[in-house]
Amino acid sequence: MAEFLIYADNHFPPDGEPELQASLRSRERERAGELRAAGNLRRLWRRPGTTGWIALWEAPDATELHDQLASLPMFPYLDITVEPLATHPQER
Amino acid sequence: MAEFLIYADNHFPPDGEPELQASLRSRERERAGELRAAGNLRRLWRRPGTTGWIALWEAPDATELHDQLASLPMFPYLDITVEPLATHPQER
Amino acid sequence: MAEFLIYADNHFPPDGEPELQASLRSRERERAGELRAAGNLRRLWRRPGTTGWIALWEAPDATELHDQLASLPMFPYLDITVEPLATHPQER
Amino acid sequence: MAEFLIYADNHFPPDGEPELQASLRSRERERAGELRAAGNLRRLWRRPGTTGWIALWEAPDATELHDQLASLPMFPYLDITVEPLATHPQER
Amino acid sequence: MAEFLIYADNHFPPDGEPELQASLRSRERERAGELRAAGNLRRLWRRPGTTGWIALWEAPDATELHDQLASLPMFPYLDITVEPLATHPQER
Amino acid sequence: MAEFLIYADNHFPPDGEPELQASLRSRERERAGELRAAGNLRRLWRRPGTTGWIALWEAPDATELHDQLASLPMFPYLDITVEPLATHPQER
Amino acid sequence: MAEFLIYADNHFPPDGEPELQASLRSRERERAGELRAAGNLRRLWRRPGTTGWIALWEAPDATELHDQLASLPMFPYLDITVEPLATHPQER
Amino acid sequence: MAEFLIYADNHFPPDGEPELQASLRSRERERAGELRAAGNLRRLWRRPGTTGWIALWEAPDATELHDQLASLPMFPYLDITVEPLATHPQER
Amino acid sequence: MAEFLIYADNHFPPDGEPELQASLRSRERERAGELRAAGNLRRLWRRPGTTGWIALWEAPDATELHDQLASLPMFPYLDITVEPLATHPQER
Amino acid sequence: MAEFLIYADNHFPPDGEPELQASLRSRERERAGELRAAGNLRRLWRRPGTTGWIALWEAPDATELHDQLASLPMFPYLDITVEPLATHPQER
Repeated sequence: MAEFLIYADNHFPPDGEPELQASLRSRERERAGELRAAGNLRRLWRRPGTTGWIALWEAPDATELHDQLASLPMFPYLDITVEPLATHPQER
Repeated sequence: MAEFLIYADNHFPPDGEPELQASLRSRERERAGELRAAGNLRRLWRRPGTTGWIALWEAPDATELHDQLASLPMFPYLDITVEPLATHPQER
Repeated sequence: MAEFLIYADNHFPPDGEPELQASLRSRERERAGELRAAGNLRRLWRRPGTTGWIALWEAPDATELHDQLASLPMFPYLDITVEPLATHPQER
Repeated sequence: MAEFLIYADNHFPPDGEPELQASLRSRERERAGELRAAGNLRRLWRRPGTTGWIALWEAPDATELHDQLASLPMFPYLDITVEPLATHPQER
Repeated sequence: MAEFLIYADNHFPPDGEPELQASLRSRERERAGELRAAGNLRRLWRRPGTTGWIALWEAPDATELHDQLASLPMFPYLDITVEPLATHPQER
Repeated sequence: MAEFLIYADNHFPPDGEPELQASLRSRERERAGELRAAGNLRRLWRRPGTTGWIALWEAPDATELHDQLASLPMFPYLDITVEPLATHPQER
Repeated sequence: MAEFLIYADNHFPPDGEPELQASLRSRERERAGELRAAGNLRRLWRRPGTTGWIALWEAPDATELHDQLASLPMFPYLDITVEPLATHPQER
Repeated sequence: MAEFLIYADNHFPPDGEPELQASLRSRERERAGELRAAGNLRRLWRRPGTTGWIALWEAPDATELHDQLASLPMFPYLDITVEPLATHPQER
Repeated sequence: MAEFLIYADNHFPPDGEPELQASLRSRERERAGELRAAGNLRRLWRRPGTTGWIALWEAPDATELHDQLASLPMFPYLDITVEPLATHPQER
Repeated sequence: MAEFLIYADNHFPPDGEPELQASLRSRERERAGELRAAGNLRRLWRRPGTTGWIALWEAPDATELHDQLASLPMFPYLDITVEPLATHPQER
């Protein structure tokens, strides 16, 4: 399994429909729970002052990583950057 | 208590509803007053020529800081950057 | 304890003295080991293709964080950026 | 008195003469103390992970601000950015 | 009086109401005339190829500068950057 | 095997020793040949007007990718950026 | 035939009409197939975490390249950057 | 006559009215033809992969240059940058 | 005469020879005085906190502007950006 | 023949050997003359206020373009960016 840092800005509009937003958040939490249970979503942080997040992710490769990220219900509203991580000699 | 510099751009749309804007501003001022009274919002400046602001903030950590920032009524319209500050040796 | 992501570019010069570099690396590994044992340096990754690294760090606040980072023997050659992390609601 | 945020990166070279660096630091601390006593240097923070700093400064105008900053012994090694601050309506 | 360079991008939408735009422009010209007469707006240039402008401005400080800029009828559509200027030794 | 785009700027100094440069280039070509034979270095392009290059690289993961890049004799003089690639649905 | 790297961000709006999006995707896949068959679209990758892509493209020159890119049904929603590639001495 | 390089991004919206776009393009071509005939628009290139363009322009000065650019029917949808050019000693 | 804003960063090294620096400054002031007397250098400001400057310059065109800037004794140490200015309709 | 815009920053050091600089300039002018005579270097401009230049270049493709640029004696001191140009429909 490879490790990645994922940076996500959330640009759901401030005047978006509250019901849509509530639905997305609920389903997002559910899907994230599945990815956490599967060992892909290892850590999740809030970027303070924003609705975005940073995650430590594990996936076999970038292709499966993309499929997992694209399965998030909020995905259409996310601006995502992926940073691949290499194991540091000190942790080998 | 940790100190942070908070930079906020305000992107409430120029053609937004004046009543919504007035309501947000009024509630924003009230909430800011509470955070000032609680010792969190230490200083607040206007960035000249903009509707954004810079604040010197104190909070126990980034998690409570986020909750305080997200409690601002204008939060959905703010683009916020957080800069953590360390005490300088000269002020220890 | 607060969490931070630490990004470090290493600009030790390519034509620097090999002995100095070897000494710095050896002492860096030793000091990192101490910080890892103390629970501050939680994870360490190599940014692939570079001599820099990314770390997940825990410290009481930014002031102690700075002292820990400045205690790294390689510190004078590092260009460090600190990103504060807030606990995400899903992990509370 | 006008308020400014001052951002300073310090690029004293890692392989600079230790005696010069020690002398600069000592004189820098002394001069900063004078500026603090005079009411110009209001707050000083370390940017965590760096040798740079952020200051809240008060000066009659940008011209005197420059003269004060240029009086710092470390000035030739500082890369400084000045951000002017306006009083926020909530603090008037 | 302090001097500032003011950079303004104008993002009035291309498909905005022509009557609103005409009204804003007319009132903008009038207000600019007042600020010029008062000695605040010293010079005004068009940035070629844009609807934005650059101005050399004089104001007692950044707080009054902000109030003057915010009094421009076009202000809600302007993206403004303020650069403080210090008197050069050659002009003292 | 995962695919990556590798961007490398080469900052060997213009006034560097010609013999060192010739030696590095010769060994670089040899090592690149090995990586090409091993199926890691798939394509190599010159960025026109520069001494840098872009490569399409295959490696099991970012950790082995890093080791391969760090094995290039010119590595200490390269400023490398790694972009992970996911298989596009049209090529699955 | 010259080689180019093509970077495309896709900014089809999250709340765009699903039927339009489905139609565009279907026609995009068809047109891409033609360009692949013609030897212009050599490789296509998904940028992980995004709806954008990177392609290795061959075209006689930038003018025909543009015509081919502009023939993509999704073209009005793409933000494209073109990077020309030179053959590396090692591949001559 | 002074020479300028003009960079124009075109942000006419993808879902803009086709009739308006067709009309703008037709009038744009006509106006460009006049400016070409007058000796102002010397060369015009398409930036490959975009709807923007680069032009080599001649005008007596930046003020007339602006008036010419602002006379383009597409001007409200263009994001223009102007780069002044000096005659190179080799062409004097 | 055309107007330009000139931004100059000064990167004379902190450990440069004091005599050279003193000589450059003295000759710089003399040459600037000539350009001021000739009506080219209209205003000169210090960027506060730096050794750089901003100038309002008048020259027949960019070619003569370049020759004037290149005549400054400090020119080899300056990093200069030129912004052409158009007369604003309000000042015609 | 394809057209390209070439941007070159020149970072020959201010304290470089005057004889080397003179020699480079002389040979640069000679080589540029050959490339001009061959129809590759079509136009050459000075970026005002700098020692860099912009050129309109014609070459069969990016590979030959690179070889021509790398043949400039000043090449090791140039930081070059290449922008490919497509023929605009108005010039076809």
